[in-house]
Amino acid sequence: MKQLKYMLPESEIPRQWYNLAPDLPSPLQPPLGPDGQPIKPEMLSPIFPMGLIEQEMSPHRWVDIPDEILEILCRWRPTPLRRAIALEKALDTPARIYYKDESVSPAGSHKPNTAVAQAWYNKQEGIKRLTTETGAGQWGSALAYSCQLLGLECKVFMVRISFEQKPFRRIMMQTWGANCVPSPSEETHAGRTILEKMPDTPGSLGIAISEAVEQAAMDSTGKTKYSLGSVLNHVLMHQTVIGLEAKKQLALASEKTPDIVIGCAGGGSNFAGLAFPFVLDKINGAEIEIIPTEPTACPTMTRGPFCYDFGDTAETTPLMPMHSLGHTFVPPPIHAGGLRYHGIAPLISQGIVEGLLRPKAYDQITCYNAAVQWARTEGVICAPETSHAIAGAVDQAIQAREEGKEKVILMCFSGHGLMDLAGYDKFFAGELSDYSLPPDELKSFLEALQNLPKPPVQKTGRW
Amino acid sequence: MKQLKYMLPESEIPRQWYNLAPDLPSPLQPPLGPDGQPIKPEMLSPIFPMGLIEQEMSPHRWVDIPDEILEILCRWRPTPLRRAIALEKALDTPARIYYKDESVSPAGSHKPNTAVAQAWYNKQEGIKRLTTETGAGQWGSALAYSCQLLGLECKVFMVRISFEQKPFRRIMMQTWGANCVPSPSEETHAGRTILEKMPDTPGSLGIAISEAVEQAAMDSTGKTKYSLGSVLNHVLMHQTVIGLEAKKQLALASEKTPDIVIGCAGGGSNFAGLAFPFVLDKINGAEIEIIPTEPTACPTMTRGPFCYDFGDTAETTPLMPMHSLGHTFVPPPIHAGGLRYHGIAPLISQGIVEGLLRPKAYDQITCYNAAVQWARTEGVICAPETSHAIAGAVDQAIQAREEGKEKVILMCFSGHGLMDLAGYDKFFAGELSDYSLPPDELKSFLEALQNLPKPPVQKTGRW
Repeated sequence: MKQLKYMLPESEIPRQWYNLAPDLPSPLQPPLGPDGQPIKPEMLSPIFPMGLIEQEMSPHRWVDIPDEILEILCRWRPTPLRRAIALEKALDTPARIYYKDESVSPAGSHKPNTAVAQAWYNKQEGIKRLTTETGAGQWGSALAYSCQLLGLECKVFMVRISFEQKPFRRIMMQTWGANCVPSPSEETHAGRTILEKMPDTPGSLGIAISEAVEQAAMDSTGKTKYSLGSVLNHVLMHQTVIGLEAKKQLALASEKTPDIVIGCAGGGSNFAGLAFPFVLDKINGAEIEIIPTEPTACPTMTRGPFCYDFGDTAETTPLMPMHSLGHTFVPPPIHAGGLRYHGIAPLISQGIVEGLLRPKAYDQITCYNAAVQWARTEGVICAPETSHAIAGAVDQAIQAREEGKEKVILMCFSGHGLMDLAGYDKFFAGELSDYSLPPDELKSFLEALQNLPKPPVQKTGRW
Repeated sequence: MKQLKYMLPESEIPRQWYNLAPDLPSPLQPPLGPDGQPIKPEMLSPIFPMGLIEQEMSPHRWVDIPDEILEILCRWRPTPLRRAIALEKALDTPARIYYKDESVSPAGSHKPNTAVAQAWYNKQEGIKRLTTETGAGQWGSALAYSCQLLGLECKVFMVRISFEQKPFRRIMMQTWGANCVPSPSEETHAGRTILEKMPDTPGSLGIAISEAVEQAAMDSTGKTKYSLGSVLNHVLMHQTVIGLEAKKQLALASEKTPDIVIGCAGGGSNFAGLAFPFVLDKINGAEIEIIPTEPTACPTMTRGPFCYDFGDTAETTPLMPMHSLGHTFVPPPIHAGGLRYHGIAPLISQGIVEGLLRPKAYDQITCYNAAVQWARTEGVICAPETSHAIAGAVDQAIQAREEGKEKVILMCFSGHGLMDLAGYDKFFAGELSDYSLPPDELKSFLEALQNLPKPPVQKTGRW
């Protein structure tokens, strides 16, 4: 009997998160406030608890995971590491493809890894309620789940068009007790302002962020905070349990360091979670190709400059040092809603600048072809975001075949696609576009970056 | 850290299925053919392969599981045994509630346990194509998945109203390469006959069975067979990996024999899978309360007589010795589509007659209340069918509290509800009915049974 999955006992769950920041060859640039000066911790305290702000700015490589968080994570962790033998066979590749299966969480993705941690740190400081935004609903449902288990209220501003067209994620959030409203809403100044100007707007993630931040910041009792599902340093750190577990599981499979590590990246959290522990190995001399993948429809890492930019459309967040397509960029309506973000995590951006990470972009048709091949070999239906990781793995496995090399490929299977089947339906009906952006179309969005401060491009030149 | 789940290594997966038939205190009555005589193996061979017919009639207690089947099952098995500590706390019960989590399979339920086995035995005999019927789609998607992995074609007749109203399960089947058509269809004599009389019929499981059986039986090449997802002896036997694993896992949790074993039962396969290994313990003297649960809207086990009845509306199947509401019974439109069947497996029926099993019925509102309490404590959203098992477990846990007894409750969590969220939505909106059938309404359906042969009621009187 061939072994197809590698499990760890609960006793082997990582007890510490890994923080890449202190190990980066060149220091991470700080986020800047409205005055152009680096953000200070207290400036973030109206919307985040101090426990998370400390993690956001932590100089420590390892941060202890509290037992109560571990206890909840152990409801589904350690997650399986699986070998994609059927796909290898179909591709006739000498590569061995392993994937870390984060789809087994109750919310169906890696998102609860940080949602549980964020809810817990807020609860420690007496917070009663969290606000957040959600697009297709992956993050909102993960936070709703986590708040329910920890006894916090949860308020989710869901982009209106998703709220109306994709009711299932909304129902999940309600089943977990969250209050989910379409954004823009009448509940916030930001929402009302938009609705006055554009009563029929379908909404956007940028508007929803503004609403969620406003409602946290304006709560006079101080018992409401805001929660973000990706991009920030502490969020990426909470996801490193993925890669730390995968390392132990590769050892169980008698594999040494993988040759290639791949994950899809929208804000960057699942990719970072798998990859960062291997980035440390690479910094220490290991030869690993580490590849974040993205859609050609929203080519932040492959075509966006490294710059300072806002995290939201309304320019309410600090300026972040990151690859960006400009905060007014509106990506085409690809099904991978979680990858439709104009920026990418600063930690990942610095990794790209250094040459530690080599991003690749794949178009929607290529990704759905990979997703269907995956479903018909590995048997699991992936989320549209995850299909970008699979497209990357297939690409590398074919390359290994052409080179005749027995490479070890490690991939993050970030989530299942059971709530996203409409995209498959359109794909089978031949109704999907590949959406590769012509160069001219980016230009106007990038112009918006001209007047913002520029981060120094720090690069040791070692990779 | 409290332990909430108990995992087994792959090496501990059961190597044999357990067949309850030879251990039943009174012998199982045979199915009868159109002539009123017991069915002979060769009479089933136009629609089933001999490997499965032998299992259907097997006198052996243990049947070896072929390695190739085990290898596929190990993609997700052994499944976790989990402890529902948060629910116990919410109910303030001294009972310890364990649940076997069958929702972790790629199709989201226990169904692939038998779908993989059935596809494999068909393949061994050179069969190229399987036909089946599906209501809400759980079974159809499990068979589509299994056929895809084993390289068989799969044809699914899906009840028309589900095909139109619930496209997601259909898309799953198509993603796994199955040909899924609405039933009644123009492809079969049975379908055409119905469509002529009732062009606007929403379809029914009974019609879909007739179409699937016809298409298998009429294939002149002999390369097409039919596959059924529950009721039959071999199907229930394939599910016993659930209970055999659970036994080992209870030992890991330092528990002896459970006091109570619970599962929901439509055709009966997930319940039997968990319960039958414990029924053997009970036959051998252990004190266990074993409870199959069903909806008050379709109270087959609690209000249907033990009788001979057809498996389908069109009277094309053999007569089965079972509890039945009559093959013309049309249950109210409850969301638990998998529990809307007029009959129940003969093995379970005989267990009820003997007093080994004590069925209970719960209404839809009670079940959704239990499902929401479950989601908000255990964190997983259950299928509407599974909510009937949860309602039973909650009931028993409250009873244990009232009696002040530390009982051990073991339950089958047969599937997740991610494809069934519309029912939750209606529940929250107060739009669901509890659907308990008044006695008069059953009467006319039961009259249809008057002219059929009667099985002898065999009962040792030991329980």
